[in-house]
Amino acid sequence: MSTITESTITDSPEAQALFDKVAGLDTAAGNPRLKRIVRRVVADACRIIEDLDVTPSEFWTAMSYLTETGRKNEFGLLMPGLGIEHFIDLCVDAKERAAGIAGGTPRTIEGPLYVAGAPLAKGEARLDDDPEDGEVLIVEGRVTGRDGAPLPGAVVDVWHANTLGNYSVFDTSQSPWNLRRRIETDGNGCYRFRSILPRGYGCPPQGQTQKLLDQLGRHGRRPAHIHFFVSGPGHRQLTTQINLADDPYVHDDFAFGTRDGLVVEVAPVTDPAALAASGMTAPFSRIRFDFALNPEVAHAPDPVVARPRAEAA
Amino acid sequence: MSTITESTITDSPEAQALFDKVAGLDTAAGNPRLKRIVRRVVADACRIIEDLDVTPSEFWTAMSYLTETGRKNEFGLLMPGLGIEHFIDLCVDAKERAAGIAGGTPRTIEGPLYVAGAPLAKGEARLDDDPEDGEVLIVEGRVTGRDGAPLPGAVVDVWHANTLGNYSVFDTSQSPWNLRRRIETDGNGCYRFRSILPRGYGCPPQGQTQKLLDQLGRHGRRPAHIHFFVSGPGHRQLTTQINLADDPYVHDDFAFGTRDGLVVEVAPVTDPAALAASGMTAPFSRIRFDFALNPEVAHAPDPVVARPRAEAA
Repeated sequence: MSTITESTITDSPEAQALFDKVAGLDTAAGNPRLKRIVRRVVADACRIIEDLDVTPSEFWTAMSYLTETGRKNEFGLLMPGLGIEHFIDLCVDAKERAAGIAGGTPRTIEGPLYVAGAPLAKGEARLDDDPEDGEVLIVEGRVTGRDGAPLPGAVVDVWHANTLGNYSVFDTSQSPWNLRRRIETDGNGCYRFRSILPRGYGCPPQGQTQKLLDQLGRHGRRPAHIHFFVSGPGHRQLTTQINLADDPYVHDDFAFGTRDGLVVEVAPVTDPAALAASGMTAPFSRIRFDFALNPEVAHAPDPVVARPRAEAA
Repeated sequence: MSTITESTITDSPEAQALFDKVAGLDTAAGNPRLKRIVRRVVADACRIIEDLDVTPSEFWTAMSYLTETGRKNEFGLLMPGLGIEHFIDLCVDAKERAAGIAGGTPRTIEGPLYVAGAPLAKGEARLDDDPEDGEVLIVEGRVTGRDGAPLPGAVVDVWHANTLGNYSVFDTSQSPWNLRRRIETDGNGCYRFRSILPRGYGCPPQGQTQKLLDQLGRHGRRPAHIHFFVSGPGHRQLTTQINLADDPYVHDDFAFGTRDGLVVEVAPVTDPAALAASGMTAPFSRIRFDFALNPEVAHAPDPVVARPRAEAA
């Protein structure tokens, strides 16, 4: 490395004036917040181009990649694949700590496949509307405050993939709300649902995300998991997932969604007495998972994220 | 500003390990150049998110914007609007200087509207195939080396908008190659073409680029201009534009394409003797512009940019 500090193009008065003008800093009109962000993004992008000697052809290859990523609607998959959705979770965690919030069930990435408005059930629900070869899974637990006090009337909004790794709404071969439900906890804060055991899956093999991962020498696999939004009166909404411990990718999720406290064991239930107690006649798998929500406090970041999401037909 | 340096999330071992893994640095597989670029882009993006307190909702709004920009195929318009295409020109200029290249006609941005394969004419051509109310324009000049020696057999590949600001191929109401031609210089290095006087135009008002510019308090106007690729045997291809001096936006191009040496006067020709010398019977406008190309040298950046471009039907 050279010890001589040469002045860069990015730092030149000409380029700095360009960035100011690009961001509209020479006018009072416009959105000051966006101007500040655009000024920073453009200047940093230019510094990368200069530092890494990005050629015009490389740059336009990147723009072509982004264009196709938009056309295929894959930014919602690419951002977790690049770890940025997880990084944002780390930032929100830090902001919560600064606001005095600590403990409770960890958040993790939402991913791009939530659809609002799933049927609402009280206490328990069955999620699998379509006949499928999946193994029966029962998930049950409690929603409490961070102090362990049960939260009756909390809502567990759950969604997961079928055994082929596909989600209803996006996969129109499934019933409209297959493997999606909202369950209101009972008087003891308990929820329970019957579904099928999800399997791990990968990025669309012909998609933009997988194309980049291939070039980075990475796989595009997710471990088997189940998504949740959990909300309760007076408490902060939680966005999270549970990851099934026996999946080979459980600690190697391409989307960086696995976190301590979110890996769950899948327990086989075969004992006749236990089957009977669950109202089942054949062996099944069971997961127990409790959610602990943080009470709402002032000056904490909004836990509800506004993002464009798919809608049911 | 605080004088205490706090450690950041971005600089934490956890985040740095994340970025390494994201870029595939833990495996030998993949493309090392791309890994290096992705490592830098992701880490810098995360640093911006942290430094500017970008909220999850702001982040996903940005992703939604990029998605729509891809769908509307506007990255080729947004990048000049953000000054990045011009910044890349500054970088290539610097690389040329480092390779011993100086002088010649300045380069400027290509923009997104070139189409390869326009009809090739010798010495002179008429560009306007469609009847239009435009004023007649004649452009003429010479292609030389940087030393001023004429370059016979050079090719001037020219394209410009019609009076509505639209380009053929993209605007299918025009004839296929309207206002697009390639002209090979004659034995004296001269080229000449007859066309119509282009007018300035703006970004599509409903497009993504204009949407961002509005938020930045900026306009999306380009001054009237004419695009060129100019190439000659043994010389470096030049990508440039001329900007018409009498346009009110000539020094306020939203795409930052105007450069010293590229602003040209449009001269009205009304004198009967001058008209006769030009083979014209009615008054017209004339531009004289000479191109000086740099000789090819070793170790200079490739002046030919590979980028996705529209193709003629």
